[in-house]
Amino acid sequence: MSKRALAITRDQSFPEWYQAVVRDGDMAETSPVRGCMIIKPWGWGIWERIQAELDQRIKDTGHENCYFPLFIPMSFIAKEAEHVEGFAKEMAVVTHHRLKNDGGKLVLDPEAKLEEPLIVRPTSETIIGDAFQRWIKSYRDLPLLINQWANVVRWEMRTRLFLRTAEFLWQEGHTAHADRDDAMAETLKMLEVYREFSENILAMPVIAGEKPANERFPGADNTYSIEAMMQDGKALQAGTSHYLGTHFAEAQNIQFQNAQGQLTHCHTTSWGVSTRLIGGVIMTHADDDGLRLPPKIAPREIVIVPMLREKPEDAALIEYCTALEKDLKAQGIRVLVDAKPTKSAEKRWNWVRRGAPVIIEIGGRDASGGNVTFMRRDALRDGDKIASHTKARDAFVSEARGLLDDIQKRLYAEAKARLDQNIISGISSFDDLAAYFGPAEADDEGGAFKGWVKVAWSRPEDAALETVAERLKSLKLTIRNAPLSQEGVSGKCLFTGAPAKQYVLIARAY
Amino acid sequence: MSKRALAITRDQSFPEWYQAVVRDGDMAETSPVRGCMIIKPWGWGIWERIQAELDQRIKDTGHENCYFPLFIPMSFIAKEAEHVEGFAKEMAVVTHHRLKNDGGKLVLDPEAKLEEPLIVRPTSETIIGDAFQRWIKSYRDLPLLINQWANVVRWEMRTRLFLRTAEFLWQEGHTAHADRDDAMAETLKMLEVYREFSENILAMPVIAGEKPANERFPGADNTYSIEAMMQDGKALQAGTSHYLGTHFAEAQNIQFQNAQGQLTHCHTTSWGVSTRLIGGVIMTHADDDGLRLPPKIAPREIVIVPMLREKPEDAALIEYCTALEKDLKAQGIRVLVDAKPTKSAEKRWNWVRRGAPVIIEIGGRDASGGNVTFMRRDALRDGDKIASHTKARDAFVSEARGLLDDIQKRLYAEAKARLDQNIISGISSFDDLAAYFGPAEADDEGGAFKGWVKVAWSRPEDAALETVAERLKSLKLTIRNAPLSQEGVSGKCLFTGAPAKQYVLIARAY
Repeated sequence: MSKRALAITRDQSFPEWYQAVVRDGDMAETSPVRGCMIIKPWGWGIWERIQAELDQRIKDTGHENCYFPLFIPMSFIAKEAEHVEGFAKEMAVVTHHRLKNDGGKLVLDPEAKLEEPLIVRPTSETIIGDAFQRWIKSYRDLPLLINQWANVVRWEMRTRLFLRTAEFLWQEGHTAHADRDDAMAETLKMLEVYREFSENILAMPVIAGEKPANERFPGADNTYSIEAMMQDGKALQAGTSHYLGTHFAEAQNIQFQNAQGQLTHCHTTSWGVSTRLIGGVIMTHADDDGLRLPPKIAPREIVIVPMLREKPEDAALIEYCTALEKDLKAQGIRVLVDAKPTKSAEKRWNWVRRGAPVIIEIGGRDASGGNVTFMRRDALRDGDKIASHTKARDAFVSEARGLLDDIQKRLYAEAKARLDQNIISGISSFDDLAAYFGPAEADDEGGAFKGWVKVAWSRPEDAALETVAERLKSLKLTIRNAPLSQEGVSGKCLFTGAPAKQYVLIARAY
Repeated sequence: MSKRALAITRDQSFPEWYQAVVRDGDMAETSPVRGCMIIKPWGWGIWERIQAELDQRIKDTGHENCYFPLFIPMSFIAKEAEHVEGFAKEMAVVTHHRLKNDGGKLVLDPEAKLEEPLIVRPTSETIIGDAFQRWIKSYRDLPLLINQWANVVRWEMRTRLFLRTAEFLWQEGHTAHADRDDAMAETLKMLEVYREFSENILAMPVIAGEKPANERFPGADNTYSIEAMMQDGKALQAGTSHYLGTHFAEAQNIQFQNAQGQLTHCHTTSWGVSTRLIGGVIMTHADDDGLRLPPKIAPREIVIVPMLREKPEDAALIEYCTALEKDLKAQGIRVLVDAKPTKSAEKRWNWVRRGAPVIIEIGGRDASGGNVTFMRRDALRDGDKIASHTKARDAFVSEARGLLDDIQKRLYAEAKARLDQNIISGISSFDDLAAYFGPAEADDEGGAFKGWVKVAWSRPEDAALETVAERLKSLKLTIRNAPLSQEGVSGKCLFTGAPAKQYVLIARAY
């Protein structure tokens, strides 16, 4: 086996490879606080790009950003718990507001115990609902379209960087509407924003669809998701959009006077994506040499490494690189000259592992010949060798944007082919499904690639649905969603034998 | 007295006027959580503008953004408390990670008590220092230049929206350097970034200078600040930059191997500004009609209000406004057509109170005549009347950027004149100082405008400095800073009678 830039390959252990990509790509690390991560500059730069692109789309669809408090009064949570079945109770609770010095030791000050504990927001649903109830008076105030970028905390027992952490960053949209149609249109509009964003910006193809009833957000009438296929064949729920009916409005008294003067409950929605998307990008695009970033979310699309030799000629080399940087910047490209006092080879491999889309190495010969020598991170190797290209400097500059666009497209196409080729149909009994995926233990580290299975589905409800969910759970499987695009539904439901109403996708998942 | 857009004027009560500007300008409101605010879309839009402008400057000076955990282990705080005198202990403490249902009531789960309490970050100093200690190995890793945008919590007893809240948003820069010179240059560079940003973007003139020893950040060798003069004559500390020497590096073991192979402690700095800046903008620019926003931080620089009459002609009016919006956007101007189903007069006054720099009202006559009728928020009135201007549409579009630049300049000039005219010199005894400012109670609501006093200062230290601070405190006065620009220092220190070494500014402050 040839040497790669990471010490471990996907084949050897997908989970360990994932950790290596994150660590060696300088994206994030675990912190001294259990389950919380430190997002390093390169990882944070990716999140900034994600925020910028998605925020623009959220604004373009008429939403306004706000900021609500980090803390939620315990009474708000208690009220929600009453209304919502399946309400999660793992959350960080603030009980005191002061420390004191007790004989040289810092301790909780018992006199500073809060009358009512405060919860660190696991979501801002209740406190935003409380504001909506105050802000909304008349149909003139609707629709109310609010978004928030924030940190939230859910006490997780098993954490994994970006994918599942106690504190994570997300955006949460919350909207209120006069009727079901308007709210449902909003729910699907934001689902489509997520799909388009995921495919065009993250280069991560997804299937948009509706979750079965047992996978709905607690309190939602309908939950939709976008699901992406990772390189180990598992599904990653990358974003969700919920139509909440009037449940939350009733629980929180969010009412408006309609044009006829009647007091009516609003229909509400909520939708969100999180830093988990970065985990999705890694498991979609990274390879055994580390991360590969789609240019649109790369903090630097092109990195220039001058091959310095600690000699007087270095100055001319840096000058050549800086002039090149300037011309690329003028094309609107995010570019960096890495002139750190580190060996060039080390710098090259650092940028390979970080997934910079294009890495340029400039040596004396390039500079004197007016050339640019570069690597494409999406096509790093030719067999086992590094594929290096040389081009006249000015031609490179004028073609750079096209090169980046091509990398973006190729990364998408590669992932799209994987998704399309690995959704199999034709399984028609639970036993065959079980045989296909293998026992639940196969879900553990290093399970074979299985992809997703598309099956006919009769939409059983209540107890019948619970039975299905339990049977799937025994195999660590879940129904991911019923794709929005449904064509030629036929045959009988794999689970109930009743005539199929739609297709659903079944997979192991993160 | 003529009628103004707010129910209360600055003269009647400055503090109540401040609350009215915030409330009626739709900027923020108090939340159900004690001391925490809800930042509404208009207020948040201002913060987004502040972030965008300042973040660019932070990046242009070579810093990288990161994200560190919301929580800090209690042991980290205990360690800092040992090293830092004057360490504040008012902080939110998380003690449990789960709630449970106890006979229908949601309570803390005693089994989910944390072994070590977690502190909600009052600053990330200690957890960033811990990372620095791991990240820095050699002189090649220096300087390490990190910034973070985050929410922080300090339990405050008396809160005021934007100015002092339990949770607030800020950026905190933390850097590590090989030696004092480099760290001090960084400290002063960021002070200058704050000054330039404050004056050019917020249109808020400031005095940059060094804090006296008694006003230093605990643990700092030198603390610098920018101080702005509010319309009640008080000072607002709008940003600080600290040179921390090797104190923090020693406490946290932040060491590097220098070029000679010796292990050496780093010199560190930290610097920050917060949502408090928005309070500063309000108290610098707002008037009795509400907020006036410098265009550079206005979420919308121009707002177009079509004077709709719920008649068929409305469609043509909206079309005219939308075309105008499009042409202004093409000039890179942030513009909004407010076509909400609200009365035009109400919309006009809402935008006046929110401080939109230019408010356009388009009626049928404007549309048919190809004109634009507009108000400048910086010069809203001519006597008691609203000063309204009419201009040919195309001329307005081509001159719009210039108009906004002029508004930005005028707001700055107005504030600069106030600052320059209200720093008085010539007071040479403590009794005269006391007589000038009046008793401490005059600091309370509605105190007369006094501005700042510039006095000669001998830089007393230790006990002598403490005595000065105590005397000033009895008058609710503080030394704000010793301006960086010091010319012709002479005379004797007002406090000690010793020969002056510099001038300092004395004021009441927020």
